[in-house]
Amino acid sequence: MRYSSIPTAQSVILHCKAKGVKDIVISPGSRNAPLTIGFTEDPYFKCYSVVDERCAAFFALGIAQNTGKIVAVVCTSGSAMLNYYPAVAEAFYSDIPLLVISADRPSYRIDIGDGQTIRQENVFKNHIGYQANLKQDVSHATTTIQKFGEQLLSAKKTVEEQQKDINTFNSAELQNAIDYAVNEYAPVHINVPLEEPLYNTEEYSCVYPTVKEEEETIPESCSKLDDFASIWNTSTRKMILVGVNKPNVVEQQFLDEVAEDESVIVFTETTSNIHHSTFFNSIDSILAPIEKSENKEELFTALKPDVLLTFGGLIVSKKIKHFLRTYKPKHHWHIDGKKAYNTFYSLSHHFKVDTNTFFNAFLDKTKFVDSTYYAKWSKVKLNYEEKREAYLKTIPFSDMLAFSQILPSIPDGYQVHLSNSSTVRYAQLFPLKNTLKVYCNRGTSGIDGSTSTAVGASIYNKKPTLLVTGDLSFLYDSNALWNNYVKPNFRIIVINNSGGGIFRILPGQEETENYKTYFETAHNLEIENLCNMYNVDYKLANDENTLNQHLEDFYKESDKAILLEVKTPRIINNKILLSYFDFIS
Amino acid sequence: MRYSSIPTAQSVILHCKAKGVKDIVISPGSRNAPLTIGFTEDPYFKCYSVVDERCAAFFALGIAQNTGKIVAVVCTSGSAMLNYYPAVAEAFYSDIPLLVISADRPSYRIDIGDGQTIRQENVFKNHIGYQANLKQDVSHATTTIQKFGEQLLSAKKTVEEQQKDINTFNSAELQNAIDYAVNEYAPVHINVPLEEPLYNTEEYSCVYPTVKEEEETIPESCSKLDDFASIWNTSTRKMILVGVNKPNVVEQQFLDEVAEDESVIVFTETTSNIHHSTFFNSIDSILAPIEKSENKEELFTALKPDVLLTFGGLIVSKKIKHFLRTYKPKHHWHIDGKKAYNTFYSLSHHFKVDTNTFFNAFLDKTKFVDSTYYAKWSKVKLNYEEKREAYLKTIPFSDMLAFSQILPSIPDGYQVHLSNSSTVRYAQLFPLKNTLKVYCNRGTSGIDGSTSTAVGASIYNKKPTLLVTGDLSFLYDSNALWNNYVKPNFRIIVINNSGGGIFRILPGQEETENYKTYFETAHNLEIENLCNMYNVDYKLANDENTLNQHLEDFYKESDKAILLEVKTPRIINNKILLSYFDFIS
Repeated sequence: MRYSSIPTAQSVILHCKAKGVKDIVISPGSRNAPLTIGFTEDPYFKCYSVVDERCAAFFALGIAQNTGKIVAVVCTSGSAMLNYYPAVAEAFYSDIPLLVISADRPSYRIDIGDGQTIRQENVFKNHIGYQANLKQDVSHATTTIQKFGEQLLSAKKTVEEQQKDINTFNSAELQNAIDYAVNEYAPVHINVPLEEPLYNTEEYSCVYPTVKEEEETIPESCSKLDDFASIWNTSTRKMILVGVNKPNVVEQQFLDEVAEDESVIVFTETTSNIHHSTFFNSIDSILAPIEKSENKEELFTALKPDVLLTFGGLIVSKKIKHFLRTYKPKHHWHIDGKKAYNTFYSLSHHFKVDTNTFFNAFLDKTKFVDSTYYAKWSKVKLNYEEKREAYLKTIPFSDMLAFSQILPSIPDGYQVHLSNSSTVRYAQLFPLKNTLKVYCNRGTSGIDGSTSTAVGASIYNKKPTLLVTGDLSFLYDSNALWNNYVKPNFRIIVINNSGGGIFRILPGQEETENYKTYFETAHNLEIENLCNMYNVDYKLANDENTLNQHLEDFYKESDKAILLEVKTPRIINNKILLSYFDFIS
Repeated sequence: MRYSSIPTAQSVILHCKAKGVKDIVISPGSRNAPLTIGFTEDPYFKCYSVVDERCAAFFALGIAQNTGKIVAVVCTSGSAMLNYYPAVAEAFYSDIPLLVISADRPSYRIDIGDGQTIRQENVFKNHIGYQANLKQDVSHATTTIQKFGEQLLSAKKTVEEQQKDINTFNSAELQNAIDYAVNEYAPVHINVPLEEPLYNTEEYSCVYPTVKEEEETIPESCSKLDDFASIWNTSTRKMILVGVNKPNVVEQQFLDEVAEDESVIVFTETTSNIHHSTFFNSIDSILAPIEKSENKEELFTALKPDVLLTFGGLIVSKKIKHFLRTYKPKHHWHIDGKKAYNTFYSLSHHFKVDTNTFFNAFLDKTKFVDSTYYAKWSKVKLNYEEKREAYLKTIPFSDMLAFSQILPSIPDGYQVHLSNSSTVRYAQLFPLKNTLKVYCNRGTSGIDGSTSTAVGASIYNKKPTLLVTGDLSFLYDSNALWNNYVKPNFRIIVINNSGGGIFRILPGQEETENYKTYFETAHNLEIENLCNMYNVDYKLANDENTLNQHLEDFYKESDKAILLEVKTPRIINNKILLSYFDFIS
């Protein structure tokens, strides 16, 4: 095993190792050579090579999403790191520990007309947990520094003393950054100035990181729980609304308990990853008919909770946001160890603990309250469930019908990735098996990295991974398959409606050339070509029968990954979706 | 023609029109609908639809590079705009007027858990000329704002009065941003908060921009020109070094005049776009043999200029930078209307005027100086030119041989785009026809957008456009062909050496698995699949004969764009390049 000769490079690698950063996604370059050499030479690390930095960062985010552990991306100097930004923002809003390590030129090479040189320090400022700008070594390449007139060397200290100061500074910053990412579930950025020569190695490290012990942090207690319980116990209408949530995070016993309370209704989304037969898992199917009803005011008032209890990340349904912002609950409490967004402009308390800790303490203090709240809405739910089945029998092949066939076909235990934005919205209309683990990049809800995220998330996943995506999302992230980590049990279903069909659902659009070109961005690209390019098996379904036939074999073991393209008609999809809400009203 | 009902959206469109922003590259989305409607409904604008924002921004940059005029990109809220960042940084360092217009949510929707919502204001802070953060209308959707408790409405003023204030503020900011981009040749960012409803339109605009008259700026005069002329006239060794330069910018008469001075040598690069038989157009072929020479010290001292005069953008050759930093000229003067980088740590004066103005005033004051400077190095040049011809006869098919065949084959008048970084470096080794117009993204020297830039630059170009690129650059920007603007006379040559061959040229690399995976990122992808995908004709050459044969037909008129893949052996390229420098030494 060999080390880069550059002390700062050694320091980065040894701190990652000491702090348990194991997975390293590397994009090629020269300036980052000392880091690449260091990471790849040490068998402690599991390294991955992904050329396109935009994909690399989403790939890393996928690994972190799946394992819950910090993952590093490493790139060269210049615009390379800017391609990380979409994934950094997603990590920022989805609370994912993504460690960005960018190689940089020494400061005296910035803004003097050198190639691949930009202002890297603090470049992610708006969306980053911690920014560590490491200092340039003085012991390495000192003559170069002196030659170029940089006054790094103080007259009062020897080179060795100054290098020691730099090692100490860099060590502290490295630890701060990694600790922040791990403790706060946030992206962090370490910028590493590196001086030539870049390729020299040594057998031994000259840097010995002293890693400070983690302080035990005592979780905040649920203060004044009695007061909150007293509100709870005297309210006859309580709504629990769950956003994006990791699978198996909330203990089922707590869910079972709230499910029995007649004064509580639980609204979940596909991305909530919690399940109970009494929960309401298709929010829009409840709300859309009310929006259309003549008794709208009355019905919304009847649905409006006294207490709104939320946990999990961002909410997909626009209708529930609109409803709760208009019919504000008296109390809105949010449970989260880190942050609480005031999504409905009525947040009254943030329980800064994890969900299980909260329920464990809180449910002890609560009692069931007599109420018709659950019973009333349960009837509505049964009604739309029946009507949905009936509706599906009346409609032609379309996005909605395809989703109704695909979702029940997914085998137990699969990890399911949904892309933005049609896909995750259609998925919300149907119940999902409770053994599935569902993910979607809802931090920024971008279409820019869904495939890369799914590929990354599949790496450590013992069960197979399925990505369900629209054509625009899939084409946008087409470089996601340009790597050697697409496993044979990876599955992709592309619902191809030849453009951004979602814009047809939005109000006020007619069939004009401008609409087709600039909103829908209609295309007739053949996705099979990308499968040929990246050695993925290709299947095509373009009606109900061929889709059913393909789904029978689709999940069987195979030598390589399989992509199933489902071509739906471009024009009718939005009408079928809108008619669904009419039909169930 | 219809206008969006939103005053701010109207204001953006009308200011763009008043200020002559004609080309608008739009990526699809909902939040930017008011802007998309406004731009596409007005026949004044030429709109383009490009889905992947990374490609869209480079595409726009290509148009601006070719026309010299400001070009706008328009995207929806959220991570979309982050994908613009690589092109924004390139525009920043290449002085290109790129106008980024991002639709945003109103401020009270930021950081409260809404979808596709990030902190957009000032997000490009490190690399932007001007940041205009427009204000949210109060007259539009006022009830929504009041409902959500935002205190935008002051008690002292009516809604109309406040909206008027906002119109005035936004108008000033829009003008500042556009003026800055146009006058300073810089990227600028306008962030536009837009409130729902987004799709409503009106027949008339309610905003009437009052555009202030451009003040005539008097170009700075060349102060103390006599003093500089006196230094010039008494120096026997003067080097003119030209970086990235637009075609036909410098008047040939000035070049012809300096060419006659025996005390002047002119070093150009492929990207300089200036030509004269006496100029030195392969800098590395001069410098590499000296580096290898036993008389290195003596030769470099003989080459070292007393006066270094530079103009144009960034320098490609690392060797010239290293040489001039080590053997510093007494005087380094840079001519540029905007900025002067201290690339060689010896900048002594910045002539803040355009190159023609400078030469026009300066050459009147200069005289030819007796010197052996030109004669001495001219001999060296003749020598390596002869040896290069001889060397090419000895080498097998390889990157270098392919370039020696391709470059002379390019027909007169072509616009030639070179990708980073092997391509532009190989091109430097050979002379190019002086009728060619050469471009390369050397601002950040990234591999992230060369193809998109070339496609954009071809739009208004009457002559055909050729992109010469490496396989990694081409694959990185593979979405560049996903649009309807690839013209039939567009040509691409991909030199495919199955990975990042450039890293083989770098010092200290051996043939290890780690090297192959993480530096070279070797692959065996078939580029033909991408051609099938995007309806581009495909040709393959894998030796000298097939390459010559294909080049005969390659430039002939055709119904669609043609890509010629040139497969070279992965392993030998670097040895052949390094041996070239030995051979001419």
